[in-house]
Amino acid sequence: MSVEILEQHLSFGGTQFKYKHHSAILKSDMTFSLFLPENKDGAGIPLVWFLSGLTCTDDNFTHKSGFQHIANKNNVAVIAPDTSPRGEACANAEAYDLGQGAGFYLNATQSPWDEQFKMYDYITKELTEVVKPLVPNFNGKEAIMGHSMGGHGALVIGMKNPGRFASISAFSPILSPSEVPWGQKAFTAYLGEDKEAWKAWDSTELVKGDDVPPMLIMQGTGDNFYPGQLPENFFLDASAPHGDKVMYQQKAGYDHSYYFIATFMEDHFNFHMKHL
Amino acid sequence: MSVEILEQHLSFGGTQFKYKHHSAILKSDMTFSLFLPENKDGAGIPLVWFLSGLTCTDDNFTHKSGFQHIANKNNVAVIAPDTSPRGEACANAEAYDLGQGAGFYLNATQSPWDEQFKMYDYITKELTEVVKPLVPNFNGKEAIMGHSMGGHGALVIGMKNPGRFASISAFSPILSPSEVPWGQKAFTAYLGEDKEAWKAWDSTELVKGDDVPPMLIMQGTGDNFYPGQLPENFFLDASAPHGDKVMYQQKAGYDHSYYFIATFMEDHFNFHMKHL
Repeated sequence: MSVEILEQHLSFGGTQFKYKHHSAILKSDMTFSLFLPENKDGAGIPLVWFLSGLTCTDDNFTHKSGFQHIANKNNVAVIAPDTSPRGEACANAEAYDLGQGAGFYLNATQSPWDEQFKMYDYITKELTEVVKPLVPNFNGKEAIMGHSMGGHGALVIGMKNPGRFASISAFSPILSPSEVPWGQKAFTAYLGEDKEAWKAWDSTELVKGDDVPPMLIMQGTGDNFYPGQLPENFFLDASAPHGDKVMYQQKAGYDHSYYFIATFMEDHFNFHMKHL
Repeated sequence: MSVEILEQHLSFGGTQFKYKHHSAILKSDMTFSLFLPENKDGAGIPLVWFLSGLTCTDDNFTHKSGFQHIANKNNVAVIAPDTSPRGEACANAEAYDLGQGAGFYLNATQSPWDEQFKMYDYITKELTEVVKPLVPNFNGKEAIMGHSMGGHGALVIGMKNPGRFASISAFSPILSPSEVPWGQKAFTAYLGEDKEAWKAWDSTELVKGDDVPPMLIMQGTGDNFYPGQLPENFFLDASAPHGDKVMYQQKAGYDHSYYFIATFMEDHFNFHMKHL
């Protein structure tokens, strides 16, 4: 599990790293970014995951969200994975919403995607083991957040591992993939026509479980993809029994961009810090 | 002087615009970005210019510096111009440090550059007239800042217009272009072999003037281009008579990237606000 440092930058007293490693699960060279806070006092530090949206790599969040000063202030490490396996030999589609850059954080079962598209196992198992030794004084506590496709990923991964992630947050997530074009296209390709198989990867099904982590979900009302790809009604109906544990907030006029994410990043960190 | 809105995003309560217009001076379609604070109380607001470095467009600063929350908090409008004329018909060089993306904020006198490379006139005259009507409640006060080549630009434009810009700041600026490879290459191409003609565009010459605006200059010691392209000794020797009016600060370990800029952006705004 050797990792190579591609970049290293001082940022707000902490350090922003970009790493490369070979993933055995994805059969692909992968990059990921990791921010370590300055942690002057050598305290135990938690790890927050950020999962990005369609077309992104780990760079979008790292370059554009401005999270570093907030993470350093809160003494939190933050990891941003890439969004799919990569490479010329890896399966792909011409569309921006399928294949490379669009892994949907699940384990594909359908050919040709089942060969490499195992982002769920990659993140929850392999990358977890890769990143832990890179976080000095890791205190074992984790939270997870994401944007759009990555908001879907954060909710799914968080709810499938309730003992592991203390809290979940999402910006403009695909809350009900089985009900919208992005999700239907990806799930059909990766999981097949049988909609029963989709339920294990659909937040709106998972939130019907007895126990879920606390969740903060934000949606801008000026988002081009809202409500089309991002309706909230199915999820909110399903999550109603959890009461205040699921917070859904609309932000008037904000769009789908990193300007929205940057604006409310501190609110998301403040939410997670209450649970970490 | 018609302008077209290419993008418009809510950001920290304010609005980040990206515009396109045709520049008569540059004979080129140009983009620029403008942030307007929320300005709930309708107060008069100043305008801060940010000039970017080699290879940049107006997007780099707008996407990566995280300035928006600081500008909104201080109730300041911020404009980021592009770094040169653009287009297939426009003169160019294969190198990253000459031609398109490398206008050096001067008025070229040598062929073929003298046809379009008039970034000094563009910024101080034409773009000024374009942007003023776009800033509601503009109070007439301006400051200027920049990075690397744009740090050189901010210092030169600021010092050539001391009554106009209340203060100047720069991240890792080319302080002595006549002494370093980047500046010598650009000045030779744009201004010719006669080094007398370079003096009007060299901060280290301009700072010898009797009156200069207050200046804050920051340089990271982990910068790959320091001291090679960015030595401070010539400039500091020349500016010594101005005493504390010229502040030069080194930041241990910081590099040439936007991570450095983002980290100290608030310090730069705090500096300008004392003078605006």
